[in-house]
Amino acid sequence: MSEPTAVFLAACRRQVVPYTPIWIMRQAGRYLPEYRQIRARVSFEALTRTPELAAEVTLQPLRRFPLDAAILFSDIMTPLAGMGVDLTFEPGPVIGQPIRTDAAIDALRPLVPHRDVPFVLETVRRVRAEAPRHVPLIGFAGGPFTLLCYLVSGRPSKEFETARAFLYASPGSAERLLDRLADAMAAYLGAQAQAGAQALMLFESWGGLLAPPEFERFALRGAMRTLAALRNHGVPLIYYLNQGTALLDRLANLPADVIGVDWRAPLGAVRRVLGAQQAVQGNLDPAALFAPADELARQAGRVLQEAGGAPGHIFNLGHGIWPQTDPDAVARLVDIVHERSSRGDNRL
Amino acid sequence: MSEPTAVFLAACRRQVVPYTPIWIMRQAGRYLPEYRQIRARVSFEALTRTPELAAEVTLQPLRRFPLDAAILFSDIMTPLAGMGVDLTFEPGPVIGQPIRTDAAIDALRPLVPHRDVPFVLETVRRVRAEAPRHVPLIGFAGGPFTLLCYLVSGRPSKEFETARAFLYASPGSAERLLDRLADAMAAYLGAQAQAGAQALMLFESWGGLLAPPEFERFALRGAMRTLAALRNHGVPLIYYLNQGTALLDRLANLPADVIGVDWRAPLGAVRRVLGAQQAVQGNLDPAALFAPADELARQAGRVLQEAGGAPGHIFNLGHGIWPQTDPDAVARLVDIVHERSSRGDNRL
Repeated sequence: MSEPTAVFLAACRRQVVPYTPIWIMRQAGRYLPEYRQIRARVSFEALTRTPELAAEVTLQPLRRFPLDAAILFSDIMTPLAGMGVDLTFEPGPVIGQPIRTDAAIDALRPLVPHRDVPFVLETVRRVRAEAPRHVPLIGFAGGPFTLLCYLVSGRPSKEFETARAFLYASPGSAERLLDRLADAMAAYLGAQAQAGAQALMLFESWGGLLAPPEFERFALRGAMRTLAALRNHGVPLIYYLNQGTALLDRLANLPADVIGVDWRAPLGAVRRVLGAQQAVQGNLDPAALFAPADELARQAGRVLQEAGGAPGHIFNLGHGIWPQTDPDAVARLVDIVHERSSRGDNRL
Repeated sequence: MSEPTAVFLAACRRQVVPYTPIWIMRQAGRYLPEYRQIRARVSFEALTRTPELAAEVTLQPLRRFPLDAAILFSDIMTPLAGMGVDLTFEPGPVIGQPIRTDAAIDALRPLVPHRDVPFVLETVRRVRAEAPRHVPLIGFAGGPFTLLCYLVSGRPSKEFETARAFLYASPGSAERLLDRLADAMAAYLGAQAQAGAQALMLFESWGGLLAPPEFERFALRGAMRTLAALRNHGVPLIYYLNQGTALLDRLANLPADVIGVDWRAPLGAVRRVLGAQQAVQGNLDPAALFAPADELARQAGRVLQEAGGAPGHIFNLGHGIWPQTDPDAVARLVDIVHERSSRGDNRL
């Protein structure tokens, strides 16, 4: 059996673990009063760029809950400012000059992490120095296609119409932009690993807006290029795909150790489609945290059961935790997952 | 072979048709300059409540394109004002007092269509009198769960967190609200059929926000109740489910003649899951209308091919047409679908 220090990492590698590890997307964030206290005096952007504060915020949920992993506090758009993108948060990311031409794409600078995002690397080092030894730190970046959605649309959007129209109208330019972003995110994530991140995660939040052929041509092209470049870092790679139920069968060849899915795809079906080569992360509905305690326990039990009790499951929500969530519900969830899974369901 | 007057209705009933019929969700709308011209002098709300104008706008796309069906110009929220909901459009629907308690639910009046929405019924009668005889008119309503999302959240939202939390926190109240809405929509759609609508469609735009068990408990409960009440009207019933790839296997017992799907689920897979008892409607990506003409033709051909060339396919987009779409692309699409499918692919 693995040492307790490595439960999350062991699960990423589909090794036998004493219980199902759990962490929560956006676990460092607005649902915590101690986070809101810091944000009352510092802007979101300043917070992501100040290692002392970003590290503090990363560590906050670990003090409240016995979570099995930490995740860097940052934003998927943060590194793009380092590439010359005119980026502000209002509060969603807004691009001063949306990127819609080859000239604008070619004007993007390659990302040089120690020069362009030193504050992120310093945050990683600080968290590693201060986090409990048995809680690994996950570094992350946005999937190239998801970043393209923001860069082309210029601001958050429900359907990202401008970006999706761009794929059909200018597929060659879209590929050119995706390749640049993929290379930049590979450099970014590689630098996070060198600074101490023990797992790397790519967030493909908008990949599920695409039909399967376009997902393969655009989103998978970018993700493949980023992840392939990271294999030699020796840390688990996690690919999170939101709204991707119709796309899971395309992920078989993606060089990711873990596939994160949203709450809509039952994990049993997900594992059948993915096969045995990849661990699965997810996938409780974030809304289930608003249920009474007994119903929350039932819902969490359902996820554990659908995951099949086997190694290779990391418990998480299917999407980021909502700001209006009661932290006590999170405490209950973490306990439920640890307790139920340690009863032997997912030992071999 | 069916008469040309009935191609759309025959396809709804999975009968052999000389070509694949096509209509387009939101075909009466902002992408048409003649629509924008009317909207320049009348508010959206006034437009939906003025039969002369609503009928005119319903007919506009039929003058430009040889579409196989018309769809009533209205909004899924329109009938709720008749139930006592304090509704405005800014431009999305905003509820003055969101419905979150049993008292608020019980205060909703049952809908009496001839009293509460006479302008909708008059619009139906006008369109039937003026539309070409071979172009049937589709009446529609919102799915009870989709309406609940707006009523509980109070305004449009990307994730409808408040409504989804309500399902988990107050499932009994949610069911109570769904049953009221289901009964109201059954009355509403039944009155549309009596006024002359030749097919009835339920738009479940947000059903895909739910995991399968919650979809079944809430969204399907509501849709089932509405559709079951409409079977005796003798017109085809269409259920459109957005983002529903993970949910299609739950629709087998739904009393709908046609299942409409979004652009993410390949139609071949959709038909395998649904079986042979229901026709399928969809599902070109609305973004494909921004492709050059040859690529648009290739994409439309892919949809026809995935539909299997068999009877029981109605071509449509997978979601409403975007306002920024070029009407000429729509003209091309309608011609492509008619021409390719009439070559014999979907005759038996």
